[in-house]
Amino acid sequence: MTTQMARETAEQPESLQHTIEALLDTPETLDALGALFTGRRRVLFAARGTSDNAAVYGRYLLETQAGVLGGLASPSVATHYRADLDLRDTVLVSVSQSGRTEEIVETQRWGRGRGAATVAITNGADSPLAQEADVALVTQAGDELAVPATKSYTAQLVGMVLLSVAALRQDGDVAAAAALEDQLRRAPAQAARILQARAGVDPAVETLGSHATTVVTGRGLLMGTALETALKIEETCLRPVRGYSYADLRHGPIAAVGEGVAAVVHAAADGPLSTPMVQLAQDLADRGATVIGVGGSAEFQRAVGVHVPGAELPETLAPLVNIIPMQLVVEQLSRSLGLSPDAPQGLAKVTRTDA
Amino acid sequence: MTTQMARETAEQPESLQHTIEALLDTPETLDALGALFTGRRRVLFAARGTSDNAAVYGRYLLETQAGVLGGLASPSVATHYRADLDLRDTVLVSVSQSGRTEEIVETQRWGRGRGAATVAITNGADSPLAQEADVALVTQAGDELAVPATKSYTAQLVGMVLLSVAALRQDGDVAAAAALEDQLRRAPAQAARILQARAGVDPAVETLGSHATTVVTGRGLLMGTALETALKIEETCLRPVRGYSYADLRHGPIAAVGEGVAAVVHAAADGPLSTPMVQLAQDLADRGATVIGVGGSAEFQRAVGVHVPGAELPETLAPLVNIIPMQLVVEQLSRSLGLSPDAPQGLAKVTRTDA
Repeated sequence: MTTQMARETAEQPESLQHTIEALLDTPETLDALGALFTGRRRVLFAARGTSDNAAVYGRYLLETQAGVLGGLASPSVATHYRADLDLRDTVLVSVSQSGRTEEIVETQRWGRGRGAATVAITNGADSPLAQEADVALVTQAGDELAVPATKSYTAQLVGMVLLSVAALRQDGDVAAAAALEDQLRRAPAQAARILQARAGVDPAVETLGSHATTVVTGRGLLMGTALETALKIEETCLRPVRGYSYADLRHGPIAAVGEGVAAVVHAAADGPLSTPMVQLAQDLADRGATVIGVGGSAEFQRAVGVHVPGAELPETLAPLVNIIPMQLVVEQLSRSLGLSPDAPQGLAKVTRTDA
Repeated sequence: MTTQMARETAEQPESLQHTIEALLDTPETLDALGALFTGRRRVLFAARGTSDNAAVYGRYLLETQAGVLGGLASPSVATHYRADLDLRDTVLVSVSQSGRTEEIVETQRWGRGRGAATVAITNGADSPLAQEADVALVTQAGDELAVPATKSYTAQLVGMVLLSVAALRQDGDVAAAAALEDQLRRAPAQAARILQARAGVDPAVETLGSHATTVVTGRGLLMGTALETALKIEETCLRPVRGYSYADLRHGPIAAVGEGVAAVVHAAADGPLSTPMVQLAQDLADRGATVIGVGGSAEFQRAVGVHVPGAELPETLAPLVNIIPMQLVVEQLSRSLGLSPDAPQGLAKVTRTDA
């Protein structure tokens, strides 16, 4: 039996392609987005769960590629403390698959009331989040029925790339914007390739299934991918998983890593963090962990116990594709544990934080 | 045998008192700090591990009490990507017990080069972090020899209160600044009371020892306290622990909570999150978890399985004291597991992230 999660994971080449066409090939959207960055050099993201993991990527991309400082809002500051912050220099980007998560809608209203320009990244064209935003980046993932988000997440990442493209264009850095756009257009074919090959998926499922404890780590542009992998395992396989940044892992919790631990490490093939991630993989293996490495350089591949190939894309765009093999792993692991990946116990599709 | 961690935990009334005297009662320090906020309405924290948990509190306090937007820097953006961000409207607050953590020192240099005003919160008066900062808030915790930070953490929280006091004074909100100062001065006596009573410590140790899985949660001003509790358990007891915000727990991982799970919930006795935390405690108990509640209202106390009393302080200042009973719990739990809380396997006092 094919699960809904498996079907939706497989739809990502089309979902990515349609979202790229809708957002990148609509000049009015990019122009309107660029205009918001005039005089505003701060981006604040409001999101929860999977959408928050998308925002972590969006923030690194803006800071490292577009020179725009980002940050993640604490929704309770808006919804419960109703803090009186001056946001006139800020673009508030609210991210929600449904566009109906109440605290995110409320946070967007709060931000607008304090002077922020507002952008919604959502799959819900008719949602309050999209309707009330200054600019809505509506993703074209189609209906997503499985509770664990897959195609809506990677479609949100397209929206994150758009933010950096728009900020770069507004700065007049047309070449850097065009480079990101070109990479973005390569993502759907890369996603198709990964889905067809399923390389490394079986041994990764076996390793995760035979180890009592899982940690997941990544850094920089792939940090959000690590957090999303951890969340997916936790939601879908109902097992405790720790998602750490490379540095936070090194700064303490690495003491708890030893035999019986499966460590999923996300790495890029290039960029300034490529070499440090090889060292981390080796250190985790030296402590007795079995390392499942996703993506990374040839050297990284040699340092890990189980290798799951990632996209042939630079670090900047690899996150759009490198989550996909882990979605395949998680879906298969969930079924092998006798669970239903489509409807994990205790989770609803639209969260009401203060239900 | 008394461990070093136990001794340093017990020294917190004096450490807090000396730090308050050194920082709050030195008008030049507060004036210099206030001057940095002129024209700068953004604070960016750079920190790792325990210091990062202190920064989480500092950020909520600034946003909810002083109307200053905060955020946590990603050090790799500075140290590896060397991003060219414009920080002329930003106060960069770097937090490190030793003041010698290389990536934090490097991040401070990067920030200064991009126009940020710099503040160091550190226990190391002669450290590069303190020496190179525009304003150094030197905590008076004395030497800390145990690897798990205790008294240096609560002393850092005093520094966080100073930031909000300075920002409020600079805004001319003298009454709000004075209220925070008055509450701050009550913290050392509250810490002494908690240390003497050790109320709830034994049953909490017993509960954590008899459950295979631990989750820790908090929200808003007590979020950093929850993260610090999780980190302390993980470092010192070498067991996997998940530290979640209230909302992120609700948004997914709550599915993995059931019998066999001990849930540590930090709550305040007042403030807008007091009632939602009662509901969360009840929901966790309904799922089969044994709830250890720290602080909170009388209603919260009734909703939890094991109650650990917190400070008689408002939500704004409770974090300076409510971590202390959990430090007592962790030290005792570590010993009961046959471990050495002073020198956990694989951890060093000064972290070299890219060693």
